[in-house]
Amino acid sequence: MNAPSKLALVPFVSVENMMRLVHHNGLDAMLIRIADAIEQDFLRWDQFDKTPRVASHSDVGVIELMPTSDGEMYGFKYVNGHPKNTAEGLQTVTAFGLLADVHSGYPVLLSEMTLLTALRTAAMSALAAKHLAPKGATTMAMIGNGAQSEFQCRAFQAICGITHVRLFDTDAAATQKCAKNLENSGLHVATCKTAEDAVTGAQIITTCTADKQNATVLTDNMVGAGVHINAIGGDCPGKTELHSDILHRSSIFVEYPPQTRVEGEIQALAEDHPVIELHEVFSGKTTGRTDDKQITLFDSVGFAIEDFSALRCIKDAIKGTDFYIDLDMLADPDDPRDLYGMLNRAK
Amino acid sequence: MNAPSKLALVPFVSVENMMRLVHHNGLDAMLIRIADAIEQDFLRWDQFDKTPRVASHSDVGVIELMPTSDGEMYGFKYVNGHPKNTAEGLQTVTAFGLLADVHSGYPVLLSEMTLLTALRTAAMSALAAKHLAPKGATTMAMIGNGAQSEFQCRAFQAICGITHVRLFDTDAAATQKCAKNLENSGLHVATCKTAEDAVTGAQIITTCTADKQNATVLTDNMVGAGVHINAIGGDCPGKTELHSDILHRSSIFVEYPPQTRVEGEIQALAEDHPVIELHEVFSGKTTGRTDDKQITLFDSVGFAIEDFSALRCIKDAIKGTDFYIDLDMLADPDDPRDLYGMLNRAK
Repeated sequence: MNAPSKLALVPFVSVENMMRLVHHNGLDAMLIRIADAIEQDFLRWDQFDKTPRVASHSDVGVIELMPTSDGEMYGFKYVNGHPKNTAEGLQTVTAFGLLADVHSGYPVLLSEMTLLTALRTAAMSALAAKHLAPKGATTMAMIGNGAQSEFQCRAFQAICGITHVRLFDTDAAATQKCAKNLENSGLHVATCKTAEDAVTGAQIITTCTADKQNATVLTDNMVGAGVHINAIGGDCPGKTELHSDILHRSSIFVEYPPQTRVEGEIQALAEDHPVIELHEVFSGKTTGRTDDKQITLFDSVGFAIEDFSALRCIKDAIKGTDFYIDLDMLADPDDPRDLYGMLNRAK
Repeated sequence: MNAPSKLALVPFVSVENMMRLVHHNGLDAMLIRIADAIEQDFLRWDQFDKTPRVASHSDVGVIELMPTSDGEMYGFKYVNGHPKNTAEGLQTVTAFGLLADVHSGYPVLLSEMTLLTALRTAAMSALAAKHLAPKGATTMAMIGNGAQSEFQCRAFQAICGITHVRLFDTDAAATQKCAKNLENSGLHVATCKTAEDAVTGAQIITTCTADKQNATVLTDNMVGAGVHINAIGGDCPGKTELHSDILHRSSIFVEYPPQTRVEGEIQALAEDHPVIELHEVFSGKTTGRTDDKQITLFDSVGFAIEDFSALRCIKDAIKGTDFYIDLDMLADPDDPRDLYGMLNRAK
């Protein structure tokens, strides 16, 4: 059998290679690089094909496809969300993604995205906070200390200059795990016994819990004037984290309204409740934070363009490295009309 | 670095392994097996989540995601369609697909689907014809002799008992290629200089051309009473093959009306033009062919359930074989909440 042609091969970044790539470049550098790529892509917002993700819901979770294209490159992510998985020793979220050339339709990169989603979600949060959080913020409350929590802390450290994090989780073991993982990060870490304790003195409050239900992680009295709330966990229908009173006091910033209205915290609000699109803040078309007393809220659900940005970072980052393998994923006969002949000759 | 856990590994069937698998089992047997799986899945139509595919169109082609789920297993296919690719030495259609466990959201199979799509498209056509074509049909006209053509001929031979094929393509070289590839198939092959010649004496007419435009491969006078038309190439908006007069004389059978009305031959007809869903024919709820003079038309566009059926065939077929490799595609730390710790320990 002949070796497959070069066109038939798609570079694949495994989990192991993604970890090697992150360590090779440094986690801080990767988070900054991904945040920069997201910001660049949000600045050319109108170039992208945008559509809410395509979700397949079951009783226990959701599987989603998140496609987008800038007209040159097409990308999509496969991602699941199964809150009950943790109790079974599985990841709540696993993901992989693909980039393809719009001109030929041929895939050009396949990558694990469980780790990469953790990086891009943290990078996106920190990027939003860079534009929205009060100037000089040093302390972040981190409520929910699961798989995403350390990445959030590290991204806010690298991108927003956060020096202190205050951790809380309803499961103390999760908080201990998070604190231990951050030991040599340079962050000052406080472990807290209540959410009220965690938010004390914090200029930024990040909520990142995973229950598939409408929860109230933050109540109104816990949110003082001037804070920035980074609400990560409310990300599918029926899954929210904040009491609606907080939403009514906040300026609400979103990625892509048609998706956030269905999946985000604002699913609790009227359909025409005013929200501000983050790309307009990044471009300067709209002002983000207008005064010191304002509560800013990033109602994060995760949008396809962020995955696209992360994937193109990886495509660039693996160039000239051995952090990938080539997969024989595409049939590419010498004569494109002779697929059958290729099969026949392989006998 | 520790080896990834078993849960992190996803079996991957490359193009080379797909070809080995097909030859190991035999092409006829694979076509029959896939057709049987499609028929079984169409018989439990109501169990499936159904949605038209999610298409991203550009000037030169389309990239589509085709998801579906039966509540136990989730599947999707990535597929492009770029008619201009052939002139550049590339495949018009390339594809890959994935199956995942709905309960955990974890992928369980990744497979090339360029070849597999060719197999399932042919299997689906032959399956429809088994229910719709006139009894005792022996001769098929094959108009359009590109990458899909030999698979169509072989599937109609294996599943419908076709013994004679009459080939025509506007490019005589494509016809020669197709004829040569079918040399040892057991089929009697006639090469024709016109479409009119090809349809002479044929009880089944298959059209499978790839131009992204409204073409007229068949005109009304070429279609006699009683034939079955298997129209493959009209499969995206603005791309059809048949003169609308033929549609008005035919009983039209489709896979999934919401998709076919946008993509199929019937995009030329009124939105409420009557069509019959194939799954109702397979289940006996509706009669397919009712008399000898009736023109039956399968307006094939390709539906996600067919890919699902093909993928579950492959998942079964690779069991106990070495026709796959395991890909380290999912991050699966010992403690599912400790993704960051897994990354840290990999340093």
